[in-house]
Amino acid sequence: MRATTIHGPGDIRVEQVPDPRIEEPTDAIVRVTAGCICGSDLWRYRGDNPITVGSTIGHEAVGVVEQVGAQVRRVQVGDFVIVPFCHCDNTCANCLAGVQSACVRSGTTQSGQAELTRVGQADGSLVRTAPPGPHLLPSILALTDVMPTGWHAAVSAGVRPGMTVAVVGDGAVGLCAVIAARQQGADRVVVMSRHADRQRLATAFGATDVVAERDEAGVAAVLELTRGVGADATLECVGTDQAVRTAFGLARPGSTVGYVGVPHGVSLPIERMFGRNIGLRGGVAPVRRYLPDLLGRVLAGSIDPGRVFDLDLPLDEVAEGYRAMAERRAVKVIVRP
Amino acid sequence: MRATTIHGPGDIRVEQVPDPRIEEPTDAIVRVTAGCICGSDLWRYRGDNPITVGSTIGHEAVGVVEQVGAQVRRVQVGDFVIVPFCHCDNTCANCLAGVQSACVRSGTTQSGQAELTRVGQADGSLVRTAPPGPHLLPSILALTDVMPTGWHAAVSAGVRPGMTVAVVGDGAVGLCAVIAARQQGADRVVVMSRHADRQRLATAFGATDVVAERDEAGVAAVLELTRGVGADATLECVGTDQAVRTAFGLARPGSTVGYVGVPHGVSLPIERMFGRNIGLRGGVAPVRRYLPDLLGRVLAGSIDPGRVFDLDLPLDEVAEGYRAMAERRAVKVIVRP
Repeated sequence: MRATTIHGPGDIRVEQVPDPRIEEPTDAIVRVTAGCICGSDLWRYRGDNPITVGSTIGHEAVGVVEQVGAQVRRVQVGDFVIVPFCHCDNTCANCLAGVQSACVRSGTTQSGQAELTRVGQADGSLVRTAPPGPHLLPSILALTDVMPTGWHAAVSAGVRPGMTVAVVGDGAVGLCAVIAARQQGADRVVVMSRHADRQRLATAFGATDVVAERDEAGVAAVLELTRGVGADATLECVGTDQAVRTAFGLARPGSTVGYVGVPHGVSLPIERMFGRNIGLRGGVAPVRRYLPDLLGRVLAGSIDPGRVFDLDLPLDEVAEGYRAMAERRAVKVIVRP
Repeated sequence: MRATTIHGPGDIRVEQVPDPRIEEPTDAIVRVTAGCICGSDLWRYRGDNPITVGSTIGHEAVGVVEQVGAQVRRVQVGDFVIVPFCHCDNTCANCLAGVQSACVRSGTTQSGQAELTRVGQADGSLVRTAPPGPHLLPSILALTDVMPTGWHAAVSAGVRPGMTVAVVGDGAVGLCAVIAARQQGADRVVVMSRHADRQRLATAFGATDVVAERDEAGVAAVLELTRGVGADATLECVGTDQAVRTAFGLARPGSTVGYVGVPHGVSLPIERMFGRNIGLRGGVAPVRRYLPDLLGRVLAGSIDPGRVFDLDLPLDEVAEGYRAMAERRAVKVIVRP
């Protein structure tokens, strides 16, 4: 099959690789209708994360079940399915506790930007839905990672009706976190964003205030908006030390920072956290936990996270998609095999 | 007045110092009936925290109001009062949010092991009660710090009825955390303790399991007790890097570590926290928030945290109290002026 592979910093190719095959009787093979490029793929693209040269890349996909293992019962060949980036059996103690991302049989989608992808624990992982039309597809695709990840930030931070919520990060996850905060009842959502197009989308998603300043000036701006108290809940959607420090700077005492940006070089400010009783919760989003609810919201038209996609490319042009995201010319890119 | 002062590592003295006086119209002066020595005093005693040579030490006290400032309304001269170690106005935004330890007018008791102590924001800080008899006094004294601090660990970790709770630390705070976990509904409380006397007291307080192993062996023991899943809530009551790592080692995915041990040299294991969605909440306990409820439980005989005191000394012998705690011959020491 044709698949996106990575060979080094900035070196993304489309190559012929062996088709994935059923390895366990609980696996399924999905023919990808659409995949996308994740902010976390860019860590490897930029050389900030180690890679295996020539390995496939991409962990977000929707498509049609092509083949199932002998023990798969809940999905059939021909079903249109949403593939959460992390696989889970949805029956172990961690899954039952709502932490499907820590499933004892977890796995990860390895070839989301490709013609085919293998899904482990297919019965637990996959969520079926009717094949979406072209207008709905982007929002369905957003359910594989960014929308549930933004949702997890809000759940982890304990967003409640009436709260003032700060969102650190205006990437696709930060923008989805704005949606999540509003859906979970926030009265006021302050998004930290320096890019006019992202500010506009954040506002369309329900952000009530935009803070363009960063670091200390950004913290000061949020404190001023909250009469010196700080945000009732803070959603950290970047993963850098700078973003984490900003989050703890503007979080009010006793509140929680919900974090979903994969930490890179983060040193947590424990003295501030302890002295001000600011908690930290979150991590790898349990996508499967939130998927049925979020799918319902998409189908009902309550949320439209697909608007984060602003570039749509055929698989052969995937390298341009990486460049566009790395250069911030695009927020998020659909890739179609 | 006579007061305990610290002059260097291991150098505790009782000296004549100037009487504290009303500095703000919101202050009160309390004549100390009984004070005590805190595990956090030992950081300075051991030379691990900086000191001001000759400064008074001790932040836990109960006693009788001797003098009040012009703006004090809610306590009167002659009232028996509990002095929380952290002072608060109990009216600011942080106090109203239940984080009295981050009061915008916060202060700390500076001479709890002395004849007199000054209390800032007396109306907000002090809690009145009938003068306790000799059997009740230790449990009332425990309400100034260790019992609310153990309580805060359990609240921060999100203890709920039916949970299996692990307590890391068998000092006075850890022992009070055992009480708190049971009062908040834990079915099972696993305490990590190597000392027979503390194991006995923990069991008397409601611990159902004792793990004497430390570090990896201790983690393994708790995992075995929980069928490999880990503790539903973990209360970290020490503050060392070793204790924090143990806490995150045995906490189940998706759970929260409630921490109240003042962090010393702690480097948080963020990769594990993120990968397993283990949260961290807690910090300096908002004693004033919990005091009325905990006082009610003491007066009703539901809890008896005073049992953590196993040495009772006159002020003149306070240096022996520090030695006994530092050498682990005593869990916690009452000091009587």
